[in-house]
Amino acid sequence: MFGCLVAGRLVQAAPQQVAEDKFVFDVPDYENINHVVVFMLGTIPFPEGMGGSVYFCYPDQSGMAVWQLLGFVTNEKPSAIFKISGLKSGKGSQHPFGAMNLPQTPTVAQIGISVELLENLAQQTPVASAAVSSVDSFTEFTQKMLDNFYNFASSFAVTQAQMTPNPSEAFIPANVVLKW
Amino acid sequence: MFGCLVAGRLVQAAPQQVAEDKFVFDVPDYENINHVVVFMLGTIPFPEGMGGSVYFCYPDQSGMAVWQLLGFVTNEKPSAIFKISGLKSGKGSQHPFGAMNLPQTPTVAQIGISVELLENLAQQTPVASAAVSSVDSFTEFTQKMLDNFYNFASSFAVTQAQMTPNPSEAFIPANVVLKW
Repeated sequence: MFGCLVAGRLVQAAPQQVAEDKFVFDVPDYENINHVVVFMLGTIPFPEGMGGSVYFCYPDQSGMAVWQLLGFVTNEKPSAIFKISGLKSGKGSQHPFGAMNLPQTPTVAQIGISVELLENLAQQTPVASAAVSSVDSFTEFTQKMLDNFYNFASSFAVTQAQMTPNPSEAFIPANVVLKW
Repeated sequence: MFGCLVAGRLVQAAPQQVAEDKFVFDVPDYENINHVVVFMLGTIPFPEGMGGSVYFCYPDQSGMAVWQLLGFVTNEKPSAIFKISGLKSGKGSQHPFGAMNLPQTPTVAQIGISVELLENLAQQTPVASAAVSSVDSFTEFTQKMLDNFYNFASSFAVTQAQMTPNPSEAFIPANVVLKW
């Protein structure tokens, strides 16, 4: 469902699914990273009314995981570039990965994606320094989100046809979403 | 072989192959683009000693194609983020797409990738404003290129296993490379 690209490195398209609605990419050698791109592969959209919050997780000096909210991806805005280089001394924010107990190693960070209701995403404030371009600003995100959520449908159809189906692709079962 | 991602939009993984060694992505509504990511899919590496120069092409006021060199992707640095928003009033640079005669429409730009010898790439100078991070700087590129070209091999093997094979993937025949 998601891809992750550290600028200068090879793309990753197979996140670890750590919960039904949570996906994690390992990012080795994170101290030498400036920008990270998170994007939907185009194979499976978010269920209606849902999107993904994107977190950066790195180990602090005592090896504890620090999570910072970078921003969001949605069906309408299925990719985003985040600036990581300024975040390493920041403090953590609230995050939904608390029970994951991801193993922390000194040089490996994580990019975590949590699938949530769009109305919940709109109440979360990413760290300001993570936004790369004005298009990624939070204000514009919420505005776009409320505007026309399905403008994106036509481009999706084309891309799905272009892409190779992947049977092992992770997805969120619709009944899980309904239970929320 | 290549993917292209306009920040905020859906990823494209099926460029038009306009020549044996030239690939083009259409980029609609280019006036509203800030950043573009170009990356190798990880399925097929460049032939040994070769890499890709990445160009941005947009129609000028008279509808003529203006090409600007953004930078490079190589097996060792298989992805790059480029800033497009400042380029639209710049002048064109030398480019290898001269004979392509790509159809120009007012709102559609192109990202072109030309597969060339690494030693040729090292003699080309991208437009300075296109570099997003210091990692993408030209000096570091040439230095890295000359250093250890095949450090990347092990990560490639893993990613190839993770990815779905794509029989329609474009590639450069080895004998074409040898003829150069």
